[in-house]
Amino acid sequence: MLVQVGRRESFSAAHRLFDPGLSDDENQRLFGKCVSLHGHNYVLEVTVAGGIDPASGYVVDLKQLSDIMCRRVIQDVDHRNLNTDVPWLSGLIPTTENLALTFWARLLPDLPAGLLRNVRVWETDKNWAEVGDHL
Amino acid sequence: MLVQVGRRESFSAAHRLFDPGLSDDENQRLFGKCVSLHGHNYVLEVTVAGGIDPASGYVVDLKQLSDIMCRRVIQDVDHRNLNTDVPWLSGLIPTTENLALTFWARLLPDLPAGLLRNVRVWETDKNWAEVGDHL
Amino acid sequence: MLVQVGRRESFSAAHRLFDPGLSDDENQRLFGKCVSLHGHNYVLEVTVAGGIDPASGYVVDLKQLSDIMCRRVIQDVDHRNLNTDVPWLSGLIPTTENLALTFWARLLPDLPAGLLRNVRVWETDKNWAEVGDHL
Amino acid sequence: MLVQVGRRESFSAAHRLFDPGLSDDENQRLFGKCVSLHGHNYVLEVTVAGGIDPASGYVVDLKQLSDIMCRRVIQDVDHRNLNTDVPWLSGLIPTTENLALTFWARLLPDLPAGLLRNVRVWETDKNWAEVGDHL
Amino acid sequence: MLVQVGRRESFSAAHRLFDPGLSDDENQRLFGKCVSLHGHNYVLEVTVAGGIDPASGYVVDLKQLSDIMCRRVIQDVDHRNLNTDVPWLSGLIPTTENLALTFWARLLPDLPAGLLRNVRVWETDKNWAEVGDHL
Amino acid sequence: MLVQVGRRESFSAAHRLFDPGLSDDENQRLFGKCVSLHGHNYVLEVTVAGGIDPASGYVVDLKQLSDIMCRRVIQDVDHRNLNTDVPWLSGLIPTTENLALTFWARLLPDLPAGLLRNVRVWETDKNWAEVGDHL
Repeated sequence: MLVQVGRRESFSAAHRLFDPGLSDDENQRLFGKCVSLHGHNYVLEVTVAGGIDPASGYVVDLKQLSDIMCRRVIQDVDHRNLNTDVPWLSGLIPTTENLALTFWARLLPDLPAGLLRNVRVWETDKNWAEVGDHL
Repeated sequence: MLVQVGRRESFSAAHRLFDPGLSDDENQRLFGKCVSLHGHNYVLEVTVAGGIDPASGYVVDLKQLSDIMCRRVIQDVDHRNLNTDVPWLSGLIPTTENLALTFWARLLPDLPAGLLRNVRVWETDKNWAEVGDHL
Repeated sequence: MLVQVGRRESFSAAHRLFDPGLSDDENQRLFGKCVSLHGHNYVLEVTVAGGIDPASGYVVDLKQLSDIMCRRVIQDVDHRNLNTDVPWLSGLIPTTENLALTFWARLLPDLPAGLLRNVRVWETDKNWAEVGDHL
Repeated sequence: MLVQVGRRESFSAAHRLFDPGLSDDENQRLFGKCVSLHGHNYVLEVTVAGGIDPASGYVVDLKQLSDIMCRRVIQDVDHRNLNTDVPWLSGLIPTTENLALTFWARLLPDLPAGLLRNVRVWETDKNWAEVGDHL
Repeated sequence: MLVQVGRRESFSAAHRLFDPGLSDDENQRLFGKCVSLHGHNYVLEVTVAGGIDPASGYVVDLKQLSDIMCRRVIQDVDHRNLNTDVPWLSGLIPTTENLALTFWARLLPDLPAGLLRNVRVWETDKNWAEVGDHL
Repeated sequence: MLVQVGRRESFSAAHRLFDPGLSDDENQRLFGKCVSLHGHNYVLEVTVAGGIDPASGYVVDLKQLSDIMCRRVIQDVDHRNLNTDVPWLSGLIPTTENLALTFWARLLPDLPAGLLRNVRVWETDKNWAEVGDHL
C-alpha cells in the first residue's frame, strides 16, 4: 500500500514582489503593499510517497530527507533576501507559487525517482502554495 | 505545472444542530449536546488551482481571493447565529458539512471558471469538513 | 521553591455582549458587532502555585485539577448560550473579563487554600483576559 | 457531492526504532538516535468521505467516529510502550509509517464500507505519515 | 480585582542585525547569520491591566486597543524594512528587545495612564522579548 | 528598563510516574495511567531578564542561550527514557514539576548571575510546570 510521509522545515527570509521591467506605479498596482521589502517565517513541507521498506519500516529515512531539504533549499534561503541573494531564484518574482515551483525543481534530482509527491510553502499561517504531480 | 494556493480566513458564529420537523427527544438523540445553542471560532480555507501567471508570479492575487471570501461568506456569517441570521443558510442544519457545501456554492460563481478546487471549514482544531471536485 | 502548574481545557459556547437596560442603539455603540449572538471555541487555563509534594512529585494532581475545572465550570458552559443558560452567569455581560472573574470565583472554594494563582480565558487566538491575586 | 470529514485525536506513547534481529551497531546505523527508547505526543487524524445524510446534515456522526477511533486505537496505544504493550503492533518496528498502516487496518472493519479515506499520524509537528486508497 | 487583558496583532517585516559603526567582520562575529537581510512574521501582544468597567464588562474596549496598536505600530512596520523604512526606529539595531522597548514607548502615550502592563514581541515561535513595569 | 527574553527548544522523551518504594497498587492509585511507560514531545522555555546591551541590542545572545540549553539539558534528555537514562534525574519521579526544577538547577550555574528568570516545561499542549524566583 502506498504511504505518504511529510517533513516540515522552517526558514526566515526577506522578499519583495516587484518586476524590474515595470514602473513603480505598475508594480504598486500589481503587488500592493507586497512591493515593499518585508519578510516571513516560511515553512517548507515536502511530501514523499512510496512503499514501506520492510527492513526499516520507513518509506524514506526522514533524516536523509531533511538533509536534502537543508542542502538543496534551506541553507540557501534561510536568513537571505530572496530577491538578490539566491542565484537560483534570480530573475523570478519570489511569490509563494514561484518558491514552491523552484523548490520542487531543486529537490527532484536529489530524491530517488518517483518519490517526490508534493512541495508546499507557507508564507504565513494564512497563505500557502503547493506543487505536485498528482494535484 | 499546476499549482495550488490556499487562503484561510476566520469567523466566530453561533449555531445549534436541530431539525424543527423533529421532536425535542429526536433532536437530542440525533445531535446530542450540539442540540443546544453554542458557537465556534471557525476557519474557512479555500484552495484554488491553476497555472502561474508569468506577469505576476501568481496563480491568483490572494488579496482578490480574500476579498471574495469576505464579501461572499465571511461578512454574512461572522458574529452571527447561523440558524437564524443568514438568509442563504435558511432551512439547512448548520453542520460543518453543510457549511462547506454552501460556502462552495457561494464562492464558485465569483471565481474564474476552473479555479476553485477545495473548500474546507474547521469547526474546532479537532473537526473539519471539506468539499471539492477532485476529492 | 515555589512551582506553578498550568492546565488548559476547552469549551464551545455562544454569547452576545448586550445590556438589557440599554437601547439597541446604545448597545450597538458600546459593543459593535459583538452585540449579535455569535460564539467561540474558548480555552480556560488555570494556574496553581505551591511546593512539590515529595511523595508524588506533584504540586497538584492534574487529574484532580481537571476534574474540578470540569465540574465547576466546563460542564455548565460547554455547548451553552452564556447569556441565558448558565444560572451563575445570570445578569452579567459575558465579556472575557467577566468570564475570567466568575470562573475564578467558581474554582476558588474547591481548591486547597492558597493554591489558585491565575485564571485565564482565551476567546480567540488574539484575545484573552486573566485574573489572579499576584498580577 | 462528495464531502470529506476529518477528526483528530491525541495520544502519548513511548517507542524505539529497533529490529531485534539486528546487532546494536546495525540498529544504530539504521535508526540513529531513534534507537533509544523515547516518546511523543501523537495525533491521529482520520478522514472519511461520503454524501451528506439529509436527515442529519452529517457524512458521519463525529461522536461515533471518535468512539471508533478510541475503541480501536487510542485506548490501546495511549500511555503505552508501542514496542511491548500493544499486541496488535507486536513484531512491527513502530515507525510512523507502520503506525498509520496498522491504524488503518484497525479502523477499516468498524466503519461502513467505502467511508474511510485517509489515516494520518503526526509524530511531531514536523513529521507525519499517511495511508489511504486515493493517495 | 485587577484584570489583565491581552491582544495580539501580526505584521511581516524585513530586518538585519548590523551596526554601521562596526566592520563587516565585527558585525558577523556579533550577529552571525542575522547580519544578512532576512525577515519574520512577527506577533505583537499588548497586555493591559485595570478594573472592569461595570457598564461594559470591559477593562478596555479591544477594538480601541487594536486601533491604537495598528495606528501607533503595525501600520508603520508591516511590510517594511525595519532598518531603513521606519523613522522612529532609525539608529536602532532592530533586535526583538529593541522592538519591544520601542513599541512600548509608542503605545504608552496613547493609552489611559496606568493601563499598559506588558508589550511582548515574537520574532518566531521560538523567540520573544517582553517589556513591562511589573516584570 | 528590564527586558525579558524567552527561548523555546523541544525534545522527545519517554517516562513513567512510578515510585519504586511503593507497591504496584499504590503507584496505580497515585499516578493512574501515567504509571505505564509512555512519552511526550516536550517543550522547554527559558526566560532571562536584564538590561539591553547597547552594543548589540541584546539582553542575551539567543544563540548562546540556546547552546547552553542544549548542552546542559536537551542533549541529555532528547530521545531518552527519563526514568533510567539521565544520571542527573536519577531517583526523581519525572513529573513536569520535577523536570522544571531540575532543569532550572542545571541551567543556573552556566548563565551570568541574575539573568535566569523562569524555566517552563510543557508536557503537552494542555499541561505545563514553571519555576522561577519571581513567581
